[in-house]
Amino acid sequence: MNRHSLQSFFWPQSIAVLGASPDLHRIRGRLLHQLRENGYPGRILPINPSYQDIAGLRCYDSIGAVGEPVDLALVAIPAAGVAPALEECARAGVKNALIISSGFAEEGGAARDMQAALVEVTQRTGIRACGPNCEGYFNALGRIATTFSPTVEVKEDESQNLVSHHRVGVIAQSGGIGFALFNRGKAAGIGFSYVLSTGNEADLNMADFLDYMVEDTNTHVVMLFCEAVRNGPAFIAALAKARQLRKPVIAIKIGRSDAGSRASASHTASLSGSYTAYHAVFERYGVIEAEDPDEAVAIAGVLLTCPLPKGRRAGIITPSGGGGAWMADTLSLHGLVVPPLSAQTQESLRAVMPSYGAPGNPVDVTAQGSNTGPALMTAMETLAQSDEIDMLVLIASLTSETRVSLEATRVRATAERCGKPMTVWTYTLPSEFGRRSAAGCGLFVHSDLRNVGLSMSRLAGYAETVARPLPPSNTTTVAPLPGDLPVVLTEHRAKALLAPFGLPESHERLAGSAAEATQAADTLGYPVALKIASPDIAHKTEAGGVILGLQDQQSVVAAYDRIIASAKRYRSDARIEGVLVQKMAPPGRELVIGMVNDPTFGPIMMVGLGGTMVELMGDVVHRPAPVDVAEAAHMLQSLKSAPLLSGFRGSAPIDLTPAAELIANLSQAVLAYRDRIAEMELNPVILHDDGSGLTIADALITFKE
Amino acid sequence: MNRHSLQSFFWPQSIAVLGASPDLHRIRGRLLHQLRENGYPGRILPINPSYQDIAGLRCYDSIGAVGEPVDLALVAIPAAGVAPALEECARAGVKNALIISSGFAEEGGAARDMQAALVEVTQRTGIRACGPNCEGYFNALGRIATTFSPTVEVKEDESQNLVSHHRVGVIAQSGGIGFALFNRGKAAGIGFSYVLSTGNEADLNMADFLDYMVEDTNTHVVMLFCEAVRNGPAFIAALAKARQLRKPVIAIKIGRSDAGSRASASHTASLSGSYTAYHAVFERYGVIEAEDPDEAVAIAGVLLTCPLPKGRRAGIITPSGGGGAWMADTLSLHGLVVPPLSAQTQESLRAVMPSYGAPGNPVDVTAQGSNTGPALMTAMETLAQSDEIDMLVLIASLTSETRVSLEATRVRATAERCGKPMTVWTYTLPSEFGRRSAAGCGLFVHSDLRNVGLSMSRLAGYAETVARPLPPSNTTTVAPLPGDLPVVLTEHRAKALLAPFGLPESHERLAGSAAEATQAADTLGYPVALKIASPDIAHKTEAGGVILGLQDQQSVVAAYDRIIASAKRYRSDARIEGVLVQKMAPPGRELVIGMVNDPTFGPIMMVGLGGTMVELMGDVVHRPAPVDVAEAAHMLQSLKSAPLLSGFRGSAPIDLTPAAELIANLSQAVLAYRDRIAEMELNPVILHDDGSGLTIADALITFKE
Repeated sequence: MNRHSLQSFFWPQSIAVLGASPDLHRIRGRLLHQLRENGYPGRILPINPSYQDIAGLRCYDSIGAVGEPVDLALVAIPAAGVAPALEECARAGVKNALIISSGFAEEGGAARDMQAALVEVTQRTGIRACGPNCEGYFNALGRIATTFSPTVEVKEDESQNLVSHHRVGVIAQSGGIGFALFNRGKAAGIGFSYVLSTGNEADLNMADFLDYMVEDTNTHVVMLFCEAVRNGPAFIAALAKARQLRKPVIAIKIGRSDAGSRASASHTASLSGSYTAYHAVFERYGVIEAEDPDEAVAIAGVLLTCPLPKGRRAGIITPSGGGGAWMADTLSLHGLVVPPLSAQTQESLRAVMPSYGAPGNPVDVTAQGSNTGPALMTAMETLAQSDEIDMLVLIASLTSETRVSLEATRVRATAERCGKPMTVWTYTLPSEFGRRSAAGCGLFVHSDLRNVGLSMSRLAGYAETVARPLPPSNTTTVAPLPGDLPVVLTEHRAKALLAPFGLPESHERLAGSAAEATQAADTLGYPVALKIASPDIAHKTEAGGVILGLQDQQSVVAAYDRIIASAKRYRSDARIEGVLVQKMAPPGRELVIGMVNDPTFGPIMMVGLGGTMVELMGDVVHRPAPVDVAEAAHMLQSLKSAPLLSGFRGSAPIDLTPAAELIANLSQAVLAYRDRIAEMELNPVILHDDGSGLTIADALITFKE
Repeated sequence: MNRHSLQSFFWPQSIAVLGASPDLHRIRGRLLHQLRENGYPGRILPINPSYQDIAGLRCYDSIGAVGEPVDLALVAIPAAGVAPALEECARAGVKNALIISSGFAEEGGAARDMQAALVEVTQRTGIRACGPNCEGYFNALGRIATTFSPTVEVKEDESQNLVSHHRVGVIAQSGGIGFALFNRGKAAGIGFSYVLSTGNEADLNMADFLDYMVEDTNTHVVMLFCEAVRNGPAFIAALAKARQLRKPVIAIKIGRSDAGSRASASHTASLSGSYTAYHAVFERYGVIEAEDPDEAVAIAGVLLTCPLPKGRRAGIITPSGGGGAWMADTLSLHGLVVPPLSAQTQESLRAVMPSYGAPGNPVDVTAQGSNTGPALMTAMETLAQSDEIDMLVLIASLTSETRVSLEATRVRATAERCGKPMTVWTYTLPSEFGRRSAAGCGLFVHSDLRNVGLSMSRLAGYAETVARPLPPSNTTTVAPLPGDLPVVLTEHRAKALLAPFGLPESHERLAGSAAEATQAADTLGYPVALKIASPDIAHKTEAGGVILGLQDQQSVVAAYDRIIASAKRYRSDARIEGVLVQKMAPPGRELVIGMVNDPTFGPIMMVGLGGTMVELMGDVVHRPAPVDVAEAAHMLQSLKSAPLLSGFRGSAPIDLTPAAELIANLSQAVLAYRDRIAEMELNPVILHDDGSGLTIADALITFKE
């Protein structure tokens, strides 16, 4: 693999500290201090004309005076001086700058211009910049601390509790939270490669750093704290690479609620796409979402220590009956299965536990069995080999300072032999000794109960996602849109626009008179429906513009006149294109298929079952376009209401292929026109019970104004 | 208040230790040791003929040799000797026994008989017993440790971090988990009154202990770890008392999943009612459910430190923009509201924070504002007074060992002055110093983010529940059921049975011939429906036994014959009672109203909206009978699909009163016949759109066999 362009940013041979100071109360002073304290092995170059040397390091008058190329400049000087300093760095051959200074776009007003000036320097000179308004990074393997965060202060004994030599890389759009994730993860025994705060992302952004960590062999899991992605396509490209390489990405996305999004927008000084679009992208690429810091840490913990499971069946071994039952509830609640064990497996378990133990699942070896003998360990060895389970949860009380029921060598050997995910829950708070002992087993120790269920379920979900092929991202080339389209395309014009993308044939005609309407009905066959066609009438039913189930010429004529009259009454200035005559569709299940063109991620396809399931229960599934037929079918199967399509209450299952093909084709259409199209809704799409395909019973396209 | 009968159990003046031993490796030895170590101030009486004294305490040959009344005997001798020892204790005037010995009902087989022998002794002699197979209790205020749990070992400095002088009492059906809750709560700064492990509950059970703690003035919040309630009515009575006294009860109910319930049944050697019934009871009495140990601790923490809020509007003050937005998301996700603040409030907040802060909600005082000045504190004081919020969440980083941004006196004064719930979230892991400083504020410190949202939401929910009147539990007296009823009552017989309880008039007749059917239809008015009436045909539609929308005599005759023929074809030996002729009901919303007679809690009423909302989405609400009209209306309003009843998509709202009255009346009926009735289902009940009341379109009652 070629050297990544950010190699010199994360692994600099030399670091200049602009405005370096011996004063530890100033950020510039702390930066220099922490860089040295953490044992940075490269060359440190303090730049400050006021000093000859700082704490024994030679100090330079200017970056130009260094006289050799510098990999990284740390910039924590007042905002007004940053752009000129960056210019000087570029001239001196500095490759990268890390700008900690605040007071740019996040302040608004004139400060925005200062940020624009920074961008201009980077684009003109080619110097790359992280920040401004960031907290720097910590490269744990390289012992490079370019941050003033107190969480990277060096303490003794930290590495002893590492549960794995695999490491997490953190990219955070909030320095405080990014280093808090590091602080929490470290305490739980997780090793980190890099922890990076991206700040305002004037130049380098989350997508750039994600791409680096996805390719980086020191990073096994990436964790994102994400307020707003600034480069949607590059972000998606990096996620696609991660999925290809099977390198898990955990994302915490904030700004999901109104209040959170209001706060996030004011905080990051940037507009973000909808959470729906983020979620759709995350689902496609197997990104695991987390809602809580400890949840993120727990998910990382199992990803670092576990192979991917082959299924969702969990075995539980416990010294506490109550704890075992509680775990069984928790795993079940999170979509895992705790199967009863076969008589044969129970028999072999019974042989290794006290008479009053329970060899079902949970396997209760009792406190006595665990305290006075190795029942927990022997039961583990027996159950791990069983093909009746796909993963194993060990329960223990790790609060003692002197004794644990886990034997490191036996646990490690078992985990290696069985190749199944294994993890530990301690129902008491773990002591330092308890954590260390469990770390020796190579397993992540959960203190939260809920996070055991949640993280093991996410692990299984990740395994399921990466087992599905990633849809190809080929797109159809089409003729450009005519320039004179109205903002709203009503049903027949919307269908005409979409037709070249392989829509099912429409049994309909636009009629300009009652006579044309009867002619159309005769051709199509009765019964028919009549609908007003007007770009000014979006809510046709409300306007009295829809009449269904017309059986003969006479009623078609009457309906035509009634519809035109109603439309004029509803809105006298409405432009009327005519009345659409449609053959009534055979009965079936109603779908809603939609699209919203997200400012960050482009067209996002949506599908749901019509009526209350969508509007009341919000039961919809989204994916970014393009979607292929397999992914579209998976979207339909992922609906909570999917059983209604597959033979609920004795009805025959419906063939989903026509609907999946339609979604895939529509996704090509909206992608082709993504520059112009804003929204699309097909509602309802009737998927016929008799297997005769589907009918698009209404359609609406809105263009950007 | 009279002295509670369990006073001498929890506050014994003297404790005898049967089979006391100096050997600390034996449970009997550890019991004596921990009792003394914790500083039990009463008299300790070791009983063991093998010793003159143990560690300086005089040892007695037998309990009879003590020669004075003893309040509590600790029993940890082998199972076979327990019943005789209990007999001896009763004879010697011992009031209570705490039986730690295992090997009783939980082992099954002959060991069950030994438990029965224990029960016999308690019933005959009046001695009260806790256990067997329990871990004893810890009375923290009385310094009475009758347990071998290592979690009660005395350590220094523990009391310094207490967030409140209010205390939690724990009653646990698993000793391991009960003391783990204590272990976790203590670390989070929570004070405890008692922690009790109930064991097999041969005599005293959870309901007895709950009643004690509800009345006990040292206990402000009760926490239950519950596998199976053994005395439903007494448990409900204690919960009703708790609700009356507004003493919050937190319940962890395990055995909710199939696997958990399987494990729980084998572990506790007892059958439990369904989780649905537990949940219904908990909802009625305002019991707050918890799913995770830290969740239970967090809920207890806010209950101990916060007044009840007047609403769900939360203010957030944060030094971290990312942390504030994340909190806003979390609170919103848990059903709280994070409102934008008025211009006036924002103006007064802007005055107390740096220029680059954000005075919206979340109020972001920035890290600088919090580090270099008291912005967090002044913003807190300003916002707490605002009537735009009902509760306040402070965000801090409490990881430092030397500095926190919370000033105890200011926080305490603010909390007292505003009378609103306040709580703290630290995004880094709290240091010991951080916890201590925050405890000085009298606020609970959350380390979990999710649990902030969850616990504050539960607090608001509890306030809402106790604001509603508790339905009276009066019941209707009725004539006894005839003895010769079949196991299944079909529609017309079920309605006849329920009729005296105030059901709406049924427009229907049972017809024994086609002629009777047309007569009935003429009387009722067309259109009518015909339905087979047979106790052997539960699925009438499947059997071709239902024909709807009959408009005239001729079609009624044809339908009658067709139905009889279909029924005979469906099941040739079916007993046919006739054909039910019903006037077709006007259109409306379909409800399902049901009841299951739970073995623990008796009849549990259920309501849901018919069709897929019940069957696919499981959208139903349960309450124990009796339900009054107000509670029944609240049940309907609590459905996720309730918007369908109250004017969804422009439809007119429906008057719920007839449905609420029906539920209330039915609850009286099932309660009156609770000894015989097993299940009831009215499906569908059509609540007419036109406000003309409702029609019970089908009904089925099943009796116990």
